[in-house]
Amino acid sequence: MSHEQFKQCIEECLRCMVACNHCYTACLEEEDVAMMKECIRLDRQCADICGFAAQAMSTNSMYAREICRICAEVCEACGNECKKHDMKHCQECAEACLRCAKVCREMAA
Amino acid sequence: MSHEQFKQCIEECLRCMVACNHCYTACLEEEDVAMMKECIRLDRQCADICGFAAQAMSTNSMYAREICRICAEVCEACGNECKKHDMKHCQECAEACLRCAKVCREMAA
Amino acid sequence: MSHEQFKQCIEECLRCMVACNHCYTACLEEEDVAMMKECIRLDRQCADICGFAAQAMSTNSMYAREICRICAEVCEACGNECKKHDMKHCQECAEACLRCAKVCREMAA
Amino acid sequence: MSHEQFKQCIEECLRCMVACNHCYTACLEEEDVAMMKECIRLDRQCADICGFAAQAMSTNSMYAREICRICAEVCEACGNECKKHDMKHCQECAEACLRCAKVCREMAA
Repeated sequence: MSHEQFKQCIEECLRCMVACNHCYTACLEEEDVAMMKECIRLDRQCADICGFAAQAMSTNSMYAREICRICAEVCEACGNECKKHDMKHCQECAEACLRCAKVCREMAA
Repeated sequence: MSHEQFKQCIEECLRCMVACNHCYTACLEEEDVAMMKECIRLDRQCADICGFAAQAMSTNSMYAREICRICAEVCEACGNECKKHDMKHCQECAEACLRCAKVCREMAA
Repeated sequence: MSHEQFKQCIEECLRCMVACNHCYTACLEEEDVAMMKECIRLDRQCADICGFAAQAMSTNSMYAREICRICAEVCEACGNECKKHDMKHCQECAEACLRCAKVCREMAA
Repeated sequence: MSHEQFKQCIEECLRCMVACNHCYTACLEEEDVAMMKECIRLDRQCADICGFAAQAMSTNSMYAREICRICAEVCEACGNECKKHDMKHCQECAEACLRCAKVCREMAA
């Protein structure tokens, strides 16, 4: 794995973490919050593992790649849920998640 | 601050973090999730700062006391919100929050 | 996995996190810090994943078990390193790590 | 505080977190690790609070500004320590810390 790919993966994870946290906050403020339940749940899980993946990579942890593999799965699940909702915060989050999933999958390979 | 008070504060913060995370998860599964919005929001904020306070104290960080002072305020806000709801997870969380608030306030003093 | 096993695993992870953070802080204050390098490195990695595992379990995350599986490996590596050093903080940390490794391995199974 | 300033502060905190984690890892691999003790200690404390500040801001937490105020102090302490060492990782970290301190101070004001 080149230094450049490593750096890019940290950046995508952090971007995805921020997008998930924004989407989470916005979902909780939606009028029909019940409809956003699954999105809220996955946004937090995804933000948490993205943040942890960035931490693991930037401290050069022995488990960085394994975390990236799990992170890719969570990002995909979160991205697919967000895609179902028309709101701008969900669409932007879906995009960040699916990009991050791709980069994490390559990192884990 | 004695070693015993320090140890106790870490334990209360971690207990409160777990209670807030349990309450958060349970609130998201309540039928009337809209009614639990504020509880969900504060549970996560409180869990996050409690975890961070425990981290700061156990690594003997220069900012441990200041984090405890903020943590006490968040625990109080979260405990007061949880107290309004009859569910067992909210009542248990309220109790953990208000105990943690007290211990953090003493630590920060 | 019973509720009791789940609860116990969260508690062991948090106990191990605190032990690793204490050991880390103490190692950095040892006179021969060069000798403690690997211990410092693993203490932080282990504390980080233990904290994350507790977070994942207490929020009932989709990836909680997978994190516990990785956590077990890191705890074992950290425990084995700590065992090599005679200091009380290392011996206590080794014990916490090896207990946590066992419980996490059962959780992941 | 404009949305743009908010976004910029999150980015500076995450950049600083990554720089501190890189510097931390590199310091532990320096031949004279004893000389880097204070840098290692502050790098971790700074990375931890920068990550937490980004989390607090991106979840729109009630305590985001107060964390930024503390974060500014820690970044300044870490940046001043890093400045003393000639290594590239320390110089780059110092720069990231002092920039982050400035932005966090404005956010907290």
